[in-house]
Amino acid sequence: MVQISNMIDLDQSSLAEIGEMIALANQIRNYPKEYCESCRGKIMATLFYEPSTRTKMSFQTAMLRLGGEIIGFDNPQSSSVSKGESLKDTVTVVSGYADILVVRHPLEGAAEAAAMYSRVPVINAGDGGHLHPTQTLTDLVTLYNEKGRLDNLCIGLCGDLKYGRTVHSLIKTMTRYHNNSFVLISTPELALPNYVKDIMNAAGCKYVEVSSLSEAMPMLDVLYMTRIQQERFATREQYEAQKGVYVLDREKLNMGKRDLKVLHPLPRVDEITPDVDEDPRAAYFKQTVYGMYARMALIFSMLMNPQYKRKKPPTQSSHPVECSNPKCITKTEPYLPRLYFETGDMLECKYCDGRTLI
Amino acid sequence: MVQISNMIDLDQSSLAEIGEMIALANQIRNYPKEYCESCRGKIMATLFYEPSTRTKMSFQTAMLRLGGEIIGFDNPQSSSVSKGESLKDTVTVVSGYADILVVRHPLEGAAEAAAMYSRVPVINAGDGGHLHPTQTLTDLVTLYNEKGRLDNLCIGLCGDLKYGRTVHSLIKTMTRYHNNSFVLISTPELALPNYVKDIMNAAGCKYVEVSSLSEAMPMLDVLYMTRIQQERFATREQYEAQKGVYVLDREKLNMGKRDLKVLHPLPRVDEITPDVDEDPRAAYFKQTVYGMYARMALIFSMLMNPQYKRKKPPTQSSHPVECSNPKCITKTEPYLPRLYFETGDMLECKYCDGRTLI
Amino acid sequence: MVQISNMIDLDQSSLAEIGEMIALANQIRNYPKEYCESCRGKIMATLFYEPSTRTKMSFQTAMLRLGGEIIGFDNPQSSSVSKGESLKDTVTVVSGYADILVVRHPLEGAAEAAAMYSRVPVINAGDGGHLHPTQTLTDLVTLYNEKGRLDNLCIGLCGDLKYGRTVHSLIKTMTRYHNNSFVLISTPELALPNYVKDIMNAAGCKYVEVSSLSEAMPMLDVLYMTRIQQERFATREQYEAQKGVYVLDREKLNMGKRDLKVLHPLPRVDEITPDVDEDPRAAYFKQTVYGMYARMALIFSMLMNPQYKRKKPPTQSSHPVECSNPKCITKTEPYLPRLYFETGDMLECKYCDGRTLI
Repeated sequence: MVQISNMIDLDQSSLAEIGEMIALANQIRNYPKEYCESCRGKIMATLFYEPSTRTKMSFQTAMLRLGGEIIGFDNPQSSSVSKGESLKDTVTVVSGYADILVVRHPLEGAAEAAAMYSRVPVINAGDGGHLHPTQTLTDLVTLYNEKGRLDNLCIGLCGDLKYGRTVHSLIKTMTRYHNNSFVLISTPELALPNYVKDIMNAAGCKYVEVSSLSEAMPMLDVLYMTRIQQERFATREQYEAQKGVYVLDREKLNMGKRDLKVLHPLPRVDEITPDVDEDPRAAYFKQTVYGMYARMALIFSMLMNPQYKRKKPPTQSSHPVECSNPKCITKTEPYLPRLYFETGDMLECKYCDGRTLI
Repeated sequence: MVQISNMIDLDQSSLAEIGEMIALANQIRNYPKEYCESCRGKIMATLFYEPSTRTKMSFQTAMLRLGGEIIGFDNPQSSSVSKGESLKDTVTVVSGYADILVVRHPLEGAAEAAAMYSRVPVINAGDGGHLHPTQTLTDLVTLYNEKGRLDNLCIGLCGDLKYGRTVHSLIKTMTRYHNNSFVLISTPELALPNYVKDIMNAAGCKYVEVSSLSEAMPMLDVLYMTRIQQERFATREQYEAQKGVYVLDREKLNMGKRDLKVLHPLPRVDEITPDVDEDPRAAYFKQTVYGMYARMALIFSMLMNPQYKRKKPPTQSSHPVECSNPKCITKTEPYLPRLYFETGDMLECKYCDGRTLI
Repeated sequence: MVQISNMIDLDQSSLAEIGEMIALANQIRNYPKEYCESCRGKIMATLFYEPSTRTKMSFQTAMLRLGGEIIGFDNPQSSSVSKGESLKDTVTVVSGYADILVVRHPLEGAAEAAAMYSRVPVINAGDGGHLHPTQTLTDLVTLYNEKGRLDNLCIGLCGDLKYGRTVHSLIKTMTRYHNNSFVLISTPELALPNYVKDIMNAAGCKYVEVSSLSEAMPMLDVLYMTRIQQERFATREQYEAQKGVYVLDREKLNMGKRDLKVLHPLPRVDEITPDVDEDPRAAYFKQTVYGMYARMALIFSMLMNPQYKRKKPPTQSSHPVECSNPKCITKTEPYLPRLYFETGDMLECKYCDGRTLI
């Protein structure tokens, strides 16, 4: 079985490990009764420093369906946190109560920092705009089941490709599988950042950038829709003029292949019209159910890992510099040692992956 | 056993079904250990679009005492709902996680709408001023146990009879049993609406309207008290002048029959003085315990129902008109098909029961 | 086994009873599997009239690790409480749902009042600045395990000794054991109140008052640190000038004995520097884990108590006077009978222990 200590970044798992997790998710889905008492007596703590009802319910359901129990908070204003307690202290204390922690935080690198002080395994349930590995694992379980493969896919990604954390993460992971290609559908203002293009190039993946969803439709094996927020447009006029272009409706759907699958991380607002929901190509509601099984597989693997060992946290900074990312967790938690990997003339922050010139 | 798919409106259940549910509630009350593991492995989701701690705790306790587990939200501001997600999407997703949904919503018809999209059974825990069937079921279990019968009762209803949803619902149900009569105790401003009087008339039930609780007391087998809100009076002076008239105290209680039973849906504020609590005629605290057993019976019946089948939701409106009720759920959920029953020259909304002229 | 009906004030337990609870906490800690199903089917309600995430999670974890379940609220604004419901009514109703209540309230004497109306055992989880018996029980379990004894200890208490409820309570309890002495470390403004000094004197305990933590360090077997709030100082200048004096850092720690143990009720802010955490003398994080076992022992004892009997609440006031304490629960719950013990020419309030001149 996969042996995972913490799940902070899916990139740290090998394709073999990811494959095992997908297989386990399907195993649990097919034989739920075999697992419904497997975590009896275990407690999961959900430390949600920003609210996310959907993600929290998915994790809670996953734990309950394994027979475990739940504690936690999701309203920092009504928690000790508002008395100025550090992340380190909260994590130290709660990891003395619970068997596994699920951390969501508005700052980047928070889950990595939490894992340094936790006495038990930590799952990253979203750290700002940085990582959200269980969403990507959800996407992979969905693709594997709905498409039958994770390679040789032409994947369209539509909407906000600039700020969409789930899009970046999915692309990064899919470049690791054989012969996937990407169709990037957005306005120039919301185009995919260059560092993600660099990853596609380095992996030798083909991609095209287009501005029209209709044009892209016939090519796609998969369409990954995202929410496009009005405030992302320069002016209200621009928003009104363009928003329809990135709305998937029945008409556009009918330009797609018969075995196309449409995914969406949800919640959606207007970017998919409700009449698409009944089409067999709409996979976004099934995706949330796959997500529950993905999280069950992850929680089960981590709790059953006999190899889990708490690493002693480093106390010395590796370099005496501040991270240049204003959203890095080190900005609000000053006791954290400054830890960097050297890459050429840059330092890459161990927490948020932000780069700082030496 | 009763086979209930959804519990939206108690009027949709036959008297035989209601009788079976009351019998089951008493069975569980007498033999709780027989049922304490009966829903092991099942999950109830409480979707509370407006807070109601009391109702939520009653449902949660009921589910836990059957061995089940709970997820949910009760603070829409801290949920995806605040990102503008539709009721349809939330219900679709959460019904992929849970085995039964409990929905409370400020708009009328919300539970009916939720049931259209849910993959699992739905219980209405209050939809605005419209329906609250588990409160009425609670009242019935209380009356059956405290009075020994549901017929041949003289039932007083006191306080706010105009806006009191539980009052309307209780009267409607009690008119279905043999020879019940009603004493309506309120100010003219807070009198019972005509449509409820029509129901009593149609059922051949006797009723009188009086303005004095003291006068009414000697006649009553049952007194159903309700909270009377200051803002319901035209002026503060009117409130101050009249409020004492509708307060049940020891003195008034002593005018009542020895086997009178006093009910109240709670929370109370000033309308029953605390010295009444110790009197054996005060049944309002026992009522909350009966409510827990009523909800256990309902949840158990619905989860054990082998006949549950999700109906495909209608996608076409029956009539191309808007419901005239400004509090109807169709006002905020535009994708809902407009569905009406024709009654004479009126259309009756399938969601909120509101009537619109053709 | 200890037979406790309610846990309102630890002073009401004998040293033998406290000793048994500590022994049970250690028994559970050593053999958790023996207890993990012991409260299956039982429900704990947490009635938190003010938020306290830490305390709530500790109680919830304790109950879940005994196999029980949890209901409750921690946000009075989103509960029936905001509709003006009395403490009596909420307690009466919820104690019809649950098997044990945990009450936290901003007013003094609230837990005592709750216990009068509850049908099930009540634990005080903090009533304003008055009592917090499970924190003291936590401290005792920690001291017993970390020091090996509860007598013959030189105990330093540092920081806010004036308002620190946990400090007063710990001193009161430790004076009951043989030959403990106290070093009171604070500014004159934050000195220990006279009534606590009276207790030490009456017990024949030695104590000294000092203003410097550094000076005190070498004497101590135990150092109990507390949070010192800026607003407790007369001026900001005074705060800035003095705050460092009451901060425990590595330098000051190194003046302490090798077997010193440092406790803190948490959350801490700045009063202990993070570099102290790794020292084996730092016991404050272990203290939270001991607290979980202390609460497990308490909950288990109370739920297993075959002697529990609900006492009929008194309905008559013992003296027709108002309590002089403006933070007494009787101020907001007018139906409570006024109950006092006579002590000389003073009346001591049964709820808040406040004293009123006859």
